[in-house]
Amino acid sequence: MKTQALPGFRDFYPAEAALRNHIFSVWRSVAGRYGFEEYDGPPLEPLKLYTDKSGSEIVQQLYNFLDKGGREISLRPEMTPTLARMVAARAQGLKKPIRWFSIPQLFRYERQQRGRLREHFQLNVDLIGETSPLADAEVIAVSIDVLRELGLTENDFKVRVSDRNVMRALVLAAGVPEGLVDKAFAACDKIDREPAEVLIEKMVAGGISEAAGAEVLKVAGIKGGEALRAALRGLADEDSAKQLFECIDSLRAMGLDGYVEIDCSIVRGLDYYTGIVFELFDAGKSLRAICGGGRYDNLTRDIGGVALPALGFGMGDVVLGELLKDKGLLPRVESQISVFAVAVDSDDLPEVLSLAHELRDKGLSVEYALKGQSVGKQMKVAASRDARVVLVIGAAEREESVVVVRDMAAGTETKVSRELVIERVTGLAASI
Amino acid sequence: MKTQALPGFRDFYPAEAALRNHIFSVWRSVAGRYGFEEYDGPPLEPLKLYTDKSGSEIVQQLYNFLDKGGREISLRPEMTPTLARMVAARAQGLKKPIRWFSIPQLFRYERQQRGRLREHFQLNVDLIGETSPLADAEVIAVSIDVLRELGLTENDFKVRVSDRNVMRALVLAAGVPEGLVDKAFAACDKIDREPAEVLIEKMVAGGISEAAGAEVLKVAGIKGGEALRAALRGLADEDSAKQLFECIDSLRAMGLDGYVEIDCSIVRGLDYYTGIVFELFDAGKSLRAICGGGRYDNLTRDIGGVALPALGFGMGDVVLGELLKDKGLLPRVESQISVFAVAVDSDDLPEVLSLAHELRDKGLSVEYALKGQSVGKQMKVAASRDARVVLVIGAAEREESVVVVRDMAAGTETKVSRELVIERVTGLAASI
Repeated sequence: MKTQALPGFRDFYPAEAALRNHIFSVWRSVAGRYGFEEYDGPPLEPLKLYTDKSGSEIVQQLYNFLDKGGREISLRPEMTPTLARMVAARAQGLKKPIRWFSIPQLFRYERQQRGRLREHFQLNVDLIGETSPLADAEVIAVSIDVLRELGLTENDFKVRVSDRNVMRALVLAAGVPEGLVDKAFAACDKIDREPAEVLIEKMVAGGISEAAGAEVLKVAGIKGGEALRAALRGLADEDSAKQLFECIDSLRAMGLDGYVEIDCSIVRGLDYYTGIVFELFDAGKSLRAICGGGRYDNLTRDIGGVALPALGFGMGDVVLGELLKDKGLLPRVESQISVFAVAVDSDDLPEVLSLAHELRDKGLSVEYALKGQSVGKQMKVAASRDARVVLVIGAAEREESVVVVRDMAAGTETKVSRELVIERVTGLAASI
Repeated sequence: MKTQALPGFRDFYPAEAALRNHIFSVWRSVAGRYGFEEYDGPPLEPLKLYTDKSGSEIVQQLYNFLDKGGREISLRPEMTPTLARMVAARAQGLKKPIRWFSIPQLFRYERQQRGRLREHFQLNVDLIGETSPLADAEVIAVSIDVLRELGLTENDFKVRVSDRNVMRALVLAAGVPEGLVDKAFAACDKIDREPAEVLIEKMVAGGISEAAGAEVLKVAGIKGGEALRAALRGLADEDSAKQLFECIDSLRAMGLDGYVEIDCSIVRGLDYYTGIVFELFDAGKSLRAICGGGRYDNLTRDIGGVALPALGFGMGDVVLGELLKDKGLLPRVESQISVFAVAVDSDDLPEVLSLAHELRDKGLSVEYALKGQSVGKQMKVAASRDARVVLVIGAAEREESVVVVRDMAAGTETKVSRELVIERVTGLAASI
């Protein structure tokens, strides 16, 4: 019985690896436009790094174990704790604001569901050391521009933005007691996935009155700036949305407001968010969130012992790949080489090797047959590799110091002197 | 007490990540010139995949554990078993020869030695489905060209090449019994690290006669084609070096023979090699091997159940990085942005955001202050970020529909109309 890959883990054959590299390359290029620099940490960390942030319940979702030195360790389920650890270790020396991104592979042991993976790659973009809502706008803009760069438009996706301080004000005004705000948030978070009765029941079970629970669901239904302004009018915390509105205004100035919508059902499940939060969905909301993030001003203090305001997002490769597929935006990934060099006879091989290596030194991708084959067979291989140029060298060509150059796109064939052939072929290959 | 990274694991701050990306980018680019396509597999695999190849002793060097489903799994210590598994699973459909490369992170739990890491990244280049020694030359040429592309010359490194079939013939002729060839190989492998007496003692303890042991060390001392030809002359297996010499001839035709040396101390420790083997060392041999590889014609049969001739190499990032550092070949990695946009007053911010986003849409890296700051402070930040161009927008500029464009390299400043500024700035930024 042959050994197979573990369930929930992907093999990347060249076509899949090329798609992955396409997404990574867009991630890197867009993050770079905003001045973000790449970092990385170890895929294995002390278990404590994750339980300190998320409590001991997280352990059941981890690939954790004892190493041979008796250390409790875990594969990373998320990047933020590593980021907080690294930033805290050099907090003094790093210029603020810190603009960093990373593309880690992350691991979660989830009960096997159909097609559910146990690993994925995630773009993490974080901005540390700045409280201004312009920082929030900046980070949200990166997430939007990644999708635009991949070919998606405002008809394809929306960023839904909210603010936990605003939500707190609204939920308190709805009659939720101070200590039960988290239970109200949990209900808001599930408004698209569970019926209202069930959510109200859960809130009531948590100690929230039925009337307040019904009000909470109304709050979670608020969409758009006008509706939010109306809901806040007259509240003691009327100003709580100042940051959120400034963030939206900045995105408008960037020309990105068409991609953004205020949506009070967005609270993000995780306790550590402290301000503006957002999620990016396909327009039909038929897939899971493509991206989620927000402000977490206390995390570097709690994990790293150094207080720094911070915010960021994570965007996974799996849901993003599904959306690109749905929209027909997967790139053409068949490999193509620049040059295939044909040796008519084995005596011609040294000249083929010499020429091939000169062309490779110019940066061209070059192949040739690794064993003696007929010219016809070699031409077939050249065609199957989609070579831009085919070179043919036989005894006659060597005698004359020429090379037959076939331009596969134009279907033309010329003899070029050996001295000029490198220049000619690099020119042809550049014209792909 | 703050949580720290595990011993033997690296944090990649932006400067280190940039160096890593530089090496990865050269690896990808050179492999691409030879028509190799990138693949990847999971960093976690069933433990059996590694014990099937290397026996149960390997387990003491692994990060292995039971997952929550009771599976025996391990972090990958090497890539070849995953490669063999993936190739075998699609052996029918893949065009031969298969030219694949990968850049996995690999993990070994080694007893902590000073500075010894427990993870590294490794370029794996493999060519599957071809027995011709031209394939061996092709793969060796990739390893040489990677180092050339990084700026190293034939004064800096050498590829030491041998062939286990040749070594077998020579060691048998030296009087080693058929069943003890591996013990003789083990001695050859250590000739640079242990005194001759110790090696002979070990061979004698293994059942090889003292006279034969002394002959084996002479064999391991053979360097260069002439010496090898002389040693083989008159042996029954005189032809055993045909493949090796053809491989060297092909490298000569490529113009790479200056980087290559026949060296019979190279046998590679691992049993699965079946033909030509090679290691790449810095010229002074002051570092560990930079790269090692060879032909392993039985491995895909043993692991994947599909017999295919194959060969390849692994080149780690750590020793390579040390060599580049020794030679002063580390690239300049300070980050530089194209444009810093200055808002004189907060009223100018929307115009700064709009302009910045237009420039980002052109692919330029653009930053601006995320909170209100004096122009002087903003200019300082721009300088610290090494911005190529600084733009200044104040009330007067907005009034006139112009932008002040400061070319930081030339030290000149001009007013450019808002309509033309994008074109002007993209032109300036391109001239970096």
